[in-house]
Amino acid sequence: MARPVQRRTGRELGGEQVEGRQAVRELLAAGRRPVREVWLASGNDDAPILSDIARLAEARRVPVRIVTRPRLEAAALTDAPQGVLARASPLPEVELETLIEGKPGGPAAFLLVLDGVTDPHNLGALLRSAEGAGATGAVLPRHRSALIGPAAAKASAGAVEYLPLSVVPGVPSALAALAKAGIWTVGLDGASPHRLWDLELASEPVALVLGGEGRGLSRLARQRCDQLVAIPQRGSVASLNVASAGALACFEVARRRG
Amino acid sequence: MARPVQRRTGRELGGEQVEGRQAVRELLAAGRRPVREVWLASGNDDAPILSDIARLAEARRVPVRIVTRPRLEAAALTDAPQGVLARASPLPEVELETLIEGKPGGPAAFLLVLDGVTDPHNLGALLRSAEGAGATGAVLPRHRSALIGPAAAKASAGAVEYLPLSVVPGVPSALAALAKAGIWTVGLDGASPHRLWDLELASEPVALVLGGEGRGLSRLARQRCDQLVAIPQRGSVASLNVASAGALACFEVARRRG
Repeated sequence: MARPVQRRTGRELGGEQVEGRQAVRELLAAGRRPVREVWLASGNDDAPILSDIARLAEARRVPVRIVTRPRLEAAALTDAPQGVLARASPLPEVELETLIEGKPGGPAAFLLVLDGVTDPHNLGALLRSAEGAGATGAVLPRHRSALIGPAAAKASAGAVEYLPLSVVPGVPSALAALAKAGIWTVGLDGASPHRLWDLELASEPVALVLGGEGRGLSRLARQRCDQLVAIPQRGSVASLNVASAGALACFEVARRRG
Repeated sequence: MARPVQRRTGRELGGEQVEGRQAVRELLAAGRRPVREVWLASGNDDAPILSDIARLAEARRVPVRIVTRPRLEAAALTDAPQGVLARASPLPEVELETLIEGKPGGPAAFLLVLDGVTDPHNLGALLRSAEGAGATGAVLPRHRSALIGPAAAKASAGAVEYLPLSVVPGVPSALAALAKAGIWTVGLDGASPHRLWDLELASEPVALVLGGEGRGLSRLARQRCDQLVAIPQRGSVASLNVASAGALACFEVARRRG
């Protein structure tokens, strides 16, 4: 199936403004994209992570400006920038093919495909869980606005600096490409009679597919998955938060891979 | 160990204003506390959950007021009330002893103890995961402000209406009381050499203990736990979001209980 050529501009991922201590530290530590400047609020506490940030900025020759807290907070786009802000080039975008091929000699593909997750806290938490579980990349559908704003980057605790991200025109066609490449696509769907825990899964290439808040997977995405699994619920509330469901799915893969 | 008598006023839990469709529907469906009124924004879409809310309010004889969207949003305390708001009595509080004893003939205690989780989205998501995993209650330390504000109740998707909640003066003394009652206390601590997956756990009474964002468990809480376990990380970012870690721990208990 022909897919449109994907641009490498990173314009769709965004991520130019990074806020919060952990997110800024990982931006500098990962060293994957140019950082223009770091702002620190005057009168910050003496948390070790702030020394880390200053040391990493110096090592990478990134200018550090000490500004007043009101000035920093006025420039911040999240509620709690924690006295730290950075400006950087957009997040780099990788081709879906690159995610499919993986690193030579690296682990088999372990991808997270997000079909319409819109809340930035959920998006960030999902990318953090995926990175922590050893995922080799995440796939996000194109969106009208930049995908990774400061709130998502902060919620990811810097995971967006490490996890390769691919932006695709549509999730169903991406799933077709993954299946064609021999990657097992597993969708989370509360209505499935199969349990996540019973997934027959070891070290083969896999893509976990999660739908958006409330709506779940789109009909077409559901149809394209090789398998659908549910996380059995024992309470009165019918479903899990998408970030919690994603954490369970990602670490299910991690534990099967030992 | 003597513990101060706990009040049953619910003043410490709060929860008098409930916002968001799922949270308001569960408030009405659970029927555990008096609801004074429901506000619906005029010009709401025709989602089935809104009909559910209207039907449940009528059945429970709760007055429904149709107000303009700006009026509802001005009264809302969260960013996205989704055109629905309710006012109710505070959430009922249960004694720690009640959680320890459990329901006669019910499952063995399965408690979630939160040692300083402050972000309302994390708090709500944790209570939602616990309820979904079949937890029999949650334990929260006393706090200067009401514990369950509209953002936490909304993030819990109404799980706070079902999950029994106990407010304690301090987590370490609560852990001592749990241990004395024969409840196995398991703390999540990234520095532990033991993996969550290797926990020897079946259907015995258990309490999962999670620390706050960033700081983790307090020293004293860590010392009081019968066992500490870690969720092994495979990426570059050192730790998981507390709500994701809690989901993994809660569903680990759920799957062991079959």
